[in-house]
Amino acid sequence: MRGARPTKMERKLPSPLPLPARERLRVRAAELAARYASTRAATEQLCAPLAVDDYGAQSMPDASPAKWHLAHTSWFFETFVLQREAGYHPPHPRYEVLFNSYYNSVGEQYPRPRRGLLTRPTVEEVYHYRRHVDAAVAARLDGHGGPLPAARLDVIELGLHHEQQHQELLLTDVKHLLSCNPLRPVYRPRQPGATGAPLPSGWVAFSAGVYEVGHDGHGFAFDNETPRHRVFLEPFALATRLVTNGDYLAFIEDGGYTRPELWLAEGWDVVRQQGWTAPLYWKRHDAGWQLFTLAGMRAVDVAEPLCHVSYYEADAYARWAGARLPREAEWEVAAATVEDGGNFVEAGHFHPIPLTAPSPAGNVVQLFGDVWEWTQSAYSAYPGYRPAAGALGEYNGKFMCNQLVLRGGSCATPASHIRATYRNFFPPGARWQFSGIRLARDA
Amino acid sequence: MRGARPTKMERKLPSPLPLPARERLRVRAAELAARYASTRAATEQLCAPLAVDDYGAQSMPDASPAKWHLAHTSWFFETFVLQREAGYHPPHPRYEVLFNSYYNSVGEQYPRPRRGLLTRPTVEEVYHYRRHVDAAVAARLDGHGGPLPAARLDVIELGLHHEQQHQELLLTDVKHLLSCNPLRPVYRPRQPGATGAPLPSGWVAFSAGVYEVGHDGHGFAFDNETPRHRVFLEPFALATRLVTNGDYLAFIEDGGYTRPELWLAEGWDVVRQQGWTAPLYWKRHDAGWQLFTLAGMRAVDVAEPLCHVSYYEADAYARWAGARLPREAEWEVAAATVEDGGNFVEAGHFHPIPLTAPSPAGNVVQLFGDVWEWTQSAYSAYPGYRPAAGALGEYNGKFMCNQLVLRGGSCATPASHIRATYRNFFPPGARWQFSGIRLARDA
Amino acid sequence: MRGARPTKMERKLPSPLPLPARERLRVRAAELAARYASTRAATEQLCAPLAVDDYGAQSMPDASPAKWHLAHTSWFFETFVLQREAGYHPPHPRYEVLFNSYYNSVGEQYPRPRRGLLTRPTVEEVYHYRRHVDAAVAARLDGHGGPLPAARLDVIELGLHHEQQHQELLLTDVKHLLSCNPLRPVYRPRQPGATGAPLPSGWVAFSAGVYEVGHDGHGFAFDNETPRHRVFLEPFALATRLVTNGDYLAFIEDGGYTRPELWLAEGWDVVRQQGWTAPLYWKRHDAGWQLFTLAGMRAVDVAEPLCHVSYYEADAYARWAGARLPREAEWEVAAATVEDGGNFVEAGHFHPIPLTAPSPAGNVVQLFGDVWEWTQSAYSAYPGYRPAAGALGEYNGKFMCNQLVLRGGSCATPASHIRATYRNFFPPGARWQFSGIRLARDA
Amino acid sequence: MRGARPTKMERKLPSPLPLPARERLRVRAAELAARYASTRAATEQLCAPLAVDDYGAQSMPDASPAKWHLAHTSWFFETFVLQREAGYHPPHPRYEVLFNSYYNSVGEQYPRPRRGLLTRPTVEEVYHYRRHVDAAVAARLDGHGGPLPAARLDVIELGLHHEQQHQELLLTDVKHLLSCNPLRPVYRPRQPGATGAPLPSGWVAFSAGVYEVGHDGHGFAFDNETPRHRVFLEPFALATRLVTNGDYLAFIEDGGYTRPELWLAEGWDVVRQQGWTAPLYWKRHDAGWQLFTLAGMRAVDVAEPLCHVSYYEADAYARWAGARLPREAEWEVAAATVEDGGNFVEAGHFHPIPLTAPSPAGNVVQLFGDVWEWTQSAYSAYPGYRPAAGALGEYNGKFMCNQLVLRGGSCATPASHIRATYRNFFPPGARWQFSGIRLARDA
Repeated sequence: MRGARPTKMERKLPSPLPLPARERLRVRAAELAARYASTRAATEQLCAPLAVDDYGAQSMPDASPAKWHLAHTSWFFETFVLQREAGYHPPHPRYEVLFNSYYNSVGEQYPRPRRGLLTRPTVEEVYHYRRHVDAAVAARLDGHGGPLPAARLDVIELGLHHEQQHQELLLTDVKHLLSCNPLRPVYRPRQPGATGAPLPSGWVAFSAGVYEVGHDGHGFAFDNETPRHRVFLEPFALATRLVTNGDYLAFIEDGGYTRPELWLAEGWDVVRQQGWTAPLYWKRHDAGWQLFTLAGMRAVDVAEPLCHVSYYEADAYARWAGARLPREAEWEVAAATVEDGGNFVEAGHFHPIPLTAPSPAGNVVQLFGDVWEWTQSAYSAYPGYRPAAGALGEYNGKFMCNQLVLRGGSCATPASHIRATYRNFFPPGARWQFSGIRLARDA
Repeated sequence: MRGARPTKMERKLPSPLPLPARERLRVRAAELAARYASTRAATEQLCAPLAVDDYGAQSMPDASPAKWHLAHTSWFFETFVLQREAGYHPPHPRYEVLFNSYYNSVGEQYPRPRRGLLTRPTVEEVYHYRRHVDAAVAARLDGHGGPLPAARLDVIELGLHHEQQHQELLLTDVKHLLSCNPLRPVYRPRQPGATGAPLPSGWVAFSAGVYEVGHDGHGFAFDNETPRHRVFLEPFALATRLVTNGDYLAFIEDGGYTRPELWLAEGWDVVRQQGWTAPLYWKRHDAGWQLFTLAGMRAVDVAEPLCHVSYYEADAYARWAGARLPREAEWEVAAATVEDGGNFVEAGHFHPIPLTAPSPAGNVVQLFGDVWEWTQSAYSAYPGYRPAAGALGEYNGKFMCNQLVLRGGSCATPASHIRATYRNFFPPGARWQFSGIRLARDA
Repeated sequence: MRGARPTKMERKLPSPLPLPARERLRVRAAELAARYASTRAATEQLCAPLAVDDYGAQSMPDASPAKWHLAHTSWFFETFVLQREAGYHPPHPRYEVLFNSYYNSVGEQYPRPRRGLLTRPTVEEVYHYRRHVDAAVAARLDGHGGPLPAARLDVIELGLHHEQQHQELLLTDVKHLLSCNPLRPVYRPRQPGATGAPLPSGWVAFSAGVYEVGHDGHGFAFDNETPRHRVFLEPFALATRLVTNGDYLAFIEDGGYTRPELWLAEGWDVVRQQGWTAPLYWKRHDAGWQLFTLAGMRAVDVAEPLCHVSYYEADAYARWAGARLPREAEWEVAAATVEDGGNFVEAGHFHPIPLTAPSPAGNVVQLFGDVWEWTQSAYSAYPGYRPAAGALGEYNGKFMCNQLVLRGGSCATPASHIRATYRNFFPPGARWQFSGIRLARDA
Repeated sequence: MRGARPTKMERKLPSPLPLPARERLRVRAAELAARYASTRAATEQLCAPLAVDDYGAQSMPDASPAKWHLAHTSWFFETFVLQREAGYHPPHPRYEVLFNSYYNSVGEQYPRPRRGLLTRPTVEEVYHYRRHVDAAVAARLDGHGGPLPAARLDVIELGLHHEQQHQELLLTDVKHLLSCNPLRPVYRPRQPGATGAPLPSGWVAFSAGVYEVGHDGHGFAFDNETPRHRVFLEPFALATRLVTNGDYLAFIEDGGYTRPELWLAEGWDVVRQQGWTAPLYWKRHDAGWQLFTLAGMRAVDVAEPLCHVSYYEADAYARWAGARLPREAEWEVAAATVEDGGNFVEAGHFHPIPLTAPSPAGNVVQLFGDVWEWTQSAYSAYPGYRPAAGALGEYNGKFMCNQLVLRGGSCATPASHIRATYRNFFPPGARWQFSGIRLARDA
């Protein structure tokens, strides 16, 4: 989950009586200053339940310590905004290597699997670093040193979306870390009211035709969502709701994890090598299946949307169910027809929640929030795709191989971060994100 | 490279005065008997240059010993044709496990990376096994035991295409094995006349629109080529010819293997971990680049089509050249406009050969034969795809993950095996096939 | 470095007028109470320079987090002393698994390579746990609940030596962790006065004969030092002093790391696989060799004893120097002739220091402290060796395979912990301990 | 198992009336010529049951193909004898790299784990190579080109012992290879008469004292057996016979493989990681334990000496039995008291055989032949040890790390190859040699 080129932001504020360019920049800078403050604060708010001890550990190469997320997101603003200003002197020049994630154009990187060994700077020092960067960015947005050019404002906006991506990763990485501890620590106690009863699932049909997908340039988007372009879709149908734990239990009980004919060859290899018998975080107890959540261990709720499955599991489940996973264009066509509300991080559940009522009028629901929905589409370039120039061109394009697209955001995604054209991507074996399943079929 | 469901073979012989069904079956069986004999003989012909010593070794997990190919292709006919006949008694019941490649529905498999340890049965015994299977299949095709039903004839036809796939693999696996030997053994001396001079490359433009791709059901196709369906293509252009060694040398000399900005992140990791500095089989000598071929080591010929590159290298080269790789539908649309002749295995070059004249009228040439052309399309199911029923459903579908499609066949492909809709597939790091590059771009 | 059965403690206090047994126990308990308090405090004192952030990280599977050392040493007293008292209720029963190092007889263990993931209990909670254990042990030593039997006092004494072993490991593990950080954090600034000038080395000869080695039972010893037994030694000589950095630089400059004929086959494999060109923590800079110490990076001092070499390097150096490494019995025979003073952890150098004057009368010096001295003796059981009964029998004996004995203690060893019969042991590739070289030769 | 410096061969022929030096050389050359012919023929005789297919495969990195053994032993004579003669021109100069095992002083080596990929030279070509070397060596021994100097004769003698070591390895490597094949091919059918009934085991006591061990220089020995030197042994006892399959079954049935307290820590890790539940080549069937032999699968015979156990298993068994493994000096002291007859390769059993009668007068029996006996002694240099000069100095010394000494030879050892001072060595996890157990204890 990484992001990109902020294109044509000016289209965002069409005005019959256009403001002078300079004034437009000032207004946009003020707006960004407010979003900057709230977005940066939101990241730190997610860290509030952590002990100092929790910030530094890295539970696997794919995950990063919370402290690293805090520092890297600040490094992003320092590197791509502050460092490009004449006369800026970084207080800690060696952070450039420590907190560079993967930007070869910027320079060397500290090896990713060893991030947990960076006990210095300390958590306290990293917060100081954040304060330093925040003050400098705020000053620039406030006009100190002259007005920021549009291109620099674009980068700040990109940086805020980047920060939101790391908010989600911070949560999923902390969850994975805590799950490794036999004490099963609680991040935040469960909120009341996140329950429901199983509801039936139906199908919504879509007809064949040429559709437009991809971002149209109004408002922010990552470069990988562009350009908007045409696709032909044969007739298809999408399930009205997400697959639930109850649905998936039927798969497990039907021998799902022991029947090779249901699996991709590569998935079956992983099942055997890793000994998978259930989604990540599930444990079978005498009294039935339990799962680990950010609120600790509890019983599996059959009405709840399934999460923490890999693409391999999603694909095998779909095959077992006589269906398939959606193509990303199919998902986007459907998503264009609905509101984008849902169970996002601001709701404070930190977990998908059950539906409490049937889909009105048989519409597709739960497209946004709750869980990222695996699609069968490999993550690749849209026709006419051009990565951003310079180092930020590394944001998205270089990952277009051996990854699958997921759509719709999750219970760990900030609401303002998601949209119908948003393309998340992970390799097929990834399970530690809040990833789930929506079925599709040929009509 | 694996194959599938032979659909609707009967359409192949439309006749104004339809033969009685029984007679149609008899005619088709006779035709298949002839193809069976020639195809099986062709496999053995490819082994003629091998010493007994060469048959058994396995140079890497992806490759198989020549002896295993000989046995497995026979196992295929025994398992899917002979074993389904009442009263058949296999002479070597334990071969079922030894020579099963990946058919979980059939039963257990001997571990793939250990095929080189099967010194028994000996080469001589495997040839006896082939004789046994050949006699039994020929007898059945000749009508002994009653006429074969159409479904069984379909499987025999599939088996012949399967055998042809293994002919190509046998050659690429032998090449890899011989390349591991510092003595650089020669499989067959080079034929005269396989030279030429570099020629310029141009572009052929194609307009946007809805196109049909996939197999239409007339004649044999693997299940992964079906069903024929519609796609929308934005305007694009394809290079008139393949990328040559000379073209690629310019990339190498421009630091291609040392510049991360040209590479997919995953590709760059592989370049560093494996220390890649050139295509597989290239060695830098004092006198310049040499390459290993089935005719031994020789100097790199700049006019010759490049081969033995991975998807990562193909993608990086295209980015360096300011272009991209084709989508598979783009390739297929172009291929529908040309004849399917080319440099196939029957030509006896066992290596791509230079063009000897410019493309007539600026057309796209070299689409068939010479080298498999990497596309940017992940190998996935066509809309409406249904795998074959039973064990043969494992032929193609279960590999639809983390592989890229290649098109057009190579100098190791039998001419009668290839067609415009044919989809080969390999993971992005694979280099031991005759895989090369054709450029594309957005128009 | 792990320890064992306290044998025949009573011999330690021979008295012409023996005290009544009960009084003897009381006196010994009082003495142990004082040592318990000071030893436990010393561990925590070593942690004083650490930030909370530093306590939890694990830099490699062989090392443990400081927090884990603090908890495990407490677990040891809880498990082997408190838990064996009727009526003891552990405040955190699940710590039994978390902080068990390798005692299969006690039960399951949390996987060693994942100790860095135990962010809970926090550092603060672990210090609370120490307080709890300390109060309970002190109360028992003070006679609450009745006098402790001799066997239990033996275990407490063992626990104190165990704690001292972990003091050394804590330091070497922290050093390794800090070395992984490009910021090169300083544990404690260097003390003044730890310098000197290079001095020549000589040889001290010992004659052939039957010698006694091993512990005689007066005072504490680990079970692996017993029983005292006879060995025959052919005539030999030991170098008067340790090998210095200057000595070793001559080896490096003579191509030591590039000449296979100097190395054990296994050592040469490691040199090539790991790319070794110098001892651990050495870096070549433009201005010459630097090394990382607990006081940060500084120039290599040629007069200083060499440290952080593996057995492979020690062996290769000795071969290059036309000598060999000592046998452990040779070392022990020599050590029996000298005082056991030296540069131990209490000196606060946390690094070996140069000699400031030639060895008086050509004696062997630096046998104790500074660096552990690799011997050529594989770690194995003495004739008549019996491991302690019960779980504590796992302390030493089960490691008697593929390890070499080191002798004499180091600058990280507590002075009261070492003795001439002490056997430390590590696998031949280990470099993160303060391990160095003394030469020997056949006389 | 590798060998060394032939020292002081002249002592072998003490004569009252010494022959002239030149005549002595001639006599010795003639004697060696006869041994050369018979030893070389014996190697090829062991290959008689192999198909060409069997010669080339390598079943694991520790093993080598039979063809490689045939070529390497010839390479040894070519490199260390023929190449040192002026005017010798090797017919295949590139064999120098292909068939060099580990002599860095000679030059580069083809990577050991890839020996199975050398399909060329073919088996036939390797036999031609042997013929060439044999003719050249025979001519020199016959005096063509002048008399061979003593030093060269020493090397030829070493080469014959080297060849005998490879005879044993060839057999154990072929056994391992065939065991990987589910067809369980038979190397040679079992001979009649290799059965017996279980007999009780007793103890023979040896008193404490200074003993001499090591080779005294009369006759051939490897350098690692020298010099003869003194050791002090505390009183000990050795079991009269080898541990049998029946003895070991009691260990298995008592939960031997599931009780960590019986195992070295490293051994227990291996047991769990590799899933060991019995010796190598044992399989549990419904009807009881079966084992794979060079005569195929058959039932485990309880009277037969146990073989194919690792040091870890030998050590665990001894602990379970309340005993220990012998030290190598203890074994040698005992062996000096007995005849060196036994079940060697010439007997044609290719497997240990049961005792048919109790040990006469309670003596130690089965010290020679049947199985190599694990000792608890790490393989290390004797006091005063000096490796041979030049490349042959790599023969033994560089392996003195992380290996244990085994004594006495096995059913795959040529009778003329073994002696009481002979030191074989393998790492503790090795199981594919004919390695078994004799118990010892402190007296």
